[in-house]
Amino acid sequence: MRALGIDPGTAICGFGVVDAQGSRLHPVTYGTIRTSPEDTDAQRLVMLFKGLKELYATYQPDVVGVEQLFFNRNVTTAITVGQARGIILLTAEQAGIPILEFTPLQVKQGVTGYGRATKEQVTDMTMRILGIREKIKPDDAADGLAMAIYAVYSQHSQRLKRKVQL
Amino acid sequence: MRALGIDPGTAICGFGVVDAQGSRLHPVTYGTIRTSPEDTDAQRLVMLFKGLKELYATYQPDVVGVEQLFFNRNVTTAITVGQARGIILLTAEQAGIPILEFTPLQVKQGVTGYGRATKEQVTDMTMRILGIREKIKPDDAADGLAMAIYAVYSQHSQRLKRKVQL
Repeated sequence: MRALGIDPGTAICGFGVVDAQGSRLHPVTYGTIRTSPEDTDAQRLVMLFKGLKELYATYQPDVVGVEQLFFNRNVTTAITVGQARGIILLTAEQAGIPILEFTPLQVKQGVTGYGRATKEQVTDMTMRILGIREKIKPDDAADGLAMAIYAVYSQHSQRLKRKVQL
Repeated sequence: MRALGIDPGTAICGFGVVDAQGSRLHPVTYGTIRTSPEDTDAQRLVMLFKGLKELYATYQPDVVGVEQLFFNRNVTTAITVGQARGIILLTAEQAGIPILEFTPLQVKQGVTGYGRATKEQVTDMTMRILGIREKIKPDDAADGLAMAIYAVYSQHSQRLKRKVQL
């Protein structure tokens, strides 16, 4: 199975694609979709829309993992991130790809085994799990990969639960 | 000129279309795009995307007016409204329609002459300006019409400013 993890943002939207063969995970690609601060919000959302469509078409993921947003930073940020998240949900649904939503806590806990892990620790463990030697840059791409790893894990544990029920 | 005003929301997205001939305004249509609470966020955003595209294609507005969101209600609401607003900006930009953004204060002030007007007072004045006799329902549609009226006013005053500069 192939999972695409996305870290929502209008200026920088991070992503990571991971392939799972049994319990082994391989990185496929990671990076960011960036939009220009000189453009309007609407123009940036169109760029994001195009970038995401291209991502789905190129990598054809089986699932898309996106963070559930609960944050107590300012409301203006929440609206901007909400706008980007709207485009992510829209395009994934239009492409017919199942969307999995996780809290930051679930991802940290799942990837490092520790819910209070730092960003650094999550990135370190992400690199270890995927056998990536170079430091993943920027953070947004690392977040995308961690999300993709957790999307795979969550599907595995779903399958496990289903087997146990049988 | 024809203005479309939109009141963003995922459950109910209000809209109003207004035609201006000189200083006279006429209502063209108003209503809501509603999505089902039984659907996922992503499915609802796809419905909104389709509804808005249809709206632009049917009424071909010259400008789209949308509220700038600044609110101090909870952050979860800000994200949900942000998601809907993302789809509105995206689709208007894709349709090549100029987007005008106004604060609630600007719209209240512009439509009633009084920045602290109540929702009721804005709706009453909206009905008077457009010669609508039946109470506009629901509130979301009334908000859409008020926004459309203000979009027209703002364009008129822009033109006035340009004339004065000449």
